[in-house]
Amino acid sequence: MKKLWLVYVLLIGIFLIYVLNYKLHANSTDEWEAAGLRGNIEDKYVMVTFQIGIDYWKSVLKGFEDAAEELNVSVEYHGSTQHDANEQMTVLEQIIAKKPAGIAISAVNSKLLTETINKAVDSGIPVVLFDSGAPDSKAYSFLGTDNYNAGVEAARKMAELTGGKGEVAIITTPEQHNHQERTDGFSMTIRSEFPEMKVVAIKDGRGDQVASREAAEQLLSAYPQLDGIFATESNGGIGVAEAVEKMQGSHSLLQIISFDTDKGTLDLVKEGKIAATMAQGTWNMGYWSLTELFRLHRDLQEDSSAYDNNKPLPVPDKVDTGIDVVTRANVDNYYAK
Amino acid sequence: MKKLWLVYVLLIGIFLIYVLNYKLHANSTDEWEAAGLRGNIEDKYVMVTFQIGIDYWKSVLKGFEDAAEELNVSVEYHGSTQHDANEQMTVLEQIIAKKPAGIAISAVNSKLLTETINKAVDSGIPVVLFDSGAPDSKAYSFLGTDNYNAGVEAARKMAELTGGKGEVAIITTPEQHNHQERTDGFSMTIRSEFPEMKVVAIKDGRGDQVASREAAEQLLSAYPQLDGIFATESNGGIGVAEAVEKMQGSHSLLQIISFDTDKGTLDLVKEGKIAATMAQGTWNMGYWSLTELFRLHRDLQEDSSAYDNNKPLPVPDKVDTGIDVVTRANVDNYYAK
Repeated sequence: MKKLWLVYVLLIGIFLIYVLNYKLHANSTDEWEAAGLRGNIEDKYVMVTFQIGIDYWKSVLKGFEDAAEELNVSVEYHGSTQHDANEQMTVLEQIIAKKPAGIAISAVNSKLLTETINKAVDSGIPVVLFDSGAPDSKAYSFLGTDNYNAGVEAARKMAELTGGKGEVAIITTPEQHNHQERTDGFSMTIRSEFPEMKVVAIKDGRGDQVASREAAEQLLSAYPQLDGIFATESNGGIGVAEAVEKMQGSHSLLQIISFDTDKGTLDLVKEGKIAATMAQGTWNMGYWSLTELFRLHRDLQEDSSAYDNNKPLPVPDKVDTGIDVVTRANVDNYYAK
Repeated sequence: MKKLWLVYVLLIGIFLIYVLNYKLHANSTDEWEAAGLRGNIEDKYVMVTFQIGIDYWKSVLKGFEDAAEELNVSVEYHGSTQHDANEQMTVLEQIIAKKPAGIAISAVNSKLLTETINKAVDSGIPVVLFDSGAPDSKAYSFLGTDNYNAGVEAARKMAELTGGKGEVAIITTPEQHNHQERTDGFSMTIRSEFPEMKVVAIKDGRGDQVASREAAEQLLSAYPQLDGIFATESNGGIGVAEAVEKMQGSHSLLQIISFDTDKGTLDLVKEGKIAATMAQGTWNMGYWSLTELFRLHRDLQEDSSAYDNNKPLPVPDKVDTGIDVVTRANVDNYYAK
């Protein structure tokens, strides 16, 4: 009996040593390999926009959330309800007071927001700008569309649609800088790459559906042979499509290229009334904004003076989030999910 | 005796249940939270350059390795020993045959390398280009310096050094596109932002120290009042510094701005003979190339047709890896580590 008892204790003892050994071994293996990139779920990264409810930001937020999920950190989404710099400044001030791990912001007005953005950076919060930048601020990076290049791509698509010949026009919002860039990229490319094409008119559509429809009607009257219209924003594109449909008989071959991927525009692409629309890399803006902020936050946590004395920054200056041409063939990939 | 035996077995049993329970609990907690970004150490990401031994790539490779270590994946570094497109193509072919998880390549010749790069993409290997691109290839992204912007920054620094007044000259390598862009950015900025400054001459330094020294000597003779010289590459900068030192008496106030951060240039910055040099974001090129490849590889592993049918890409078109101005004040941060 005494012997049996000893055997039991011995066996159980060996088993325990085995378990302990296994656990120690497992730990030491982990130490040899890298742990991977994994943040703290308590760390909050905040995305800030204006006109917070519009469709356009949905895909940006999805990218922001996707990256946060992968990295095991938390996100919040705030912004001004209107196109209002003072409102956005107030929102940003409130966010700064909570000391988040990072802020990605699309500035409603680059000049008015600069001071508040700098305040965030000076208080040690990483800030990146997306979609609409503030070039004179201390933010670490800008992620957005190269609008000139978007115009270049639109011109090439237009040439493909019209067989590289004919008269085309642009409906844009001249006082907005990014729309001016799209217009320039389009015009310059037609001039330099397609000698048999000509931009015959550039009209102000005021970023408004009705104004753009009226502008398109005037164009169709003045240039009955018009082969294409490039609308630099989506309200304009819908207005142009309405005008062309109304005067359909005489202009059935007119090609429309629009901008962005709100549901109204995508539906018209699907119906064949808009030939193509230029999709911005909105998911990329969100995903890579968070990825950069995560990197900056980690560096600043390890050493809060990490970026003093003009040390090289670990994030790019500028990220061109890309432009895609959406046509009937691939339109289904672009509806908001 | 029998009772004591029972008590022992009971105690040990309870202890084992506790251990088991603890382990199960630990696992279930992990499942609730995200695992973080962590790759497979068996996955190899390959960085490919030309003139593989030069200092310039060291910091790119460091960035590539830093990201790989964080993400628990492996890297290899290959390339042509010379500035030779055929040699680089052969190296790339060999790498493709081994089916790595991703390839980041700096193309020695954008046209000649395009076909081989496309072959890699078509066989399902993610490819990004860095530093020197191949714009017509199917590579997913380009990460490098915006050379025009580098010229703009150099011009602003030059204006700061000369008090916004006087005559300046450029020594460059006219037949190289990136050097032409640096020259254009510099000239345009002087013209548009600094009315009291003038670019009086642009000379060919052939990317060579001796040729650049001779060009600088000619400049110093022809323009005895010259206030500054911008050299668009580092051999030229060293040549200019030699020329200025030789004729020191009459030109002690001439400001030199050079390019890149090889040891020779940094030493001259430290000695005060070169006022500033433009540092490219080389670490960023490596770090963000690997980060993008990791993302692409994961998507393609989950679905090998992930990017067919013109789906939006999860990586940016173009990443401007930034430019820093290096002066005596921050030069110590830029020596290769």
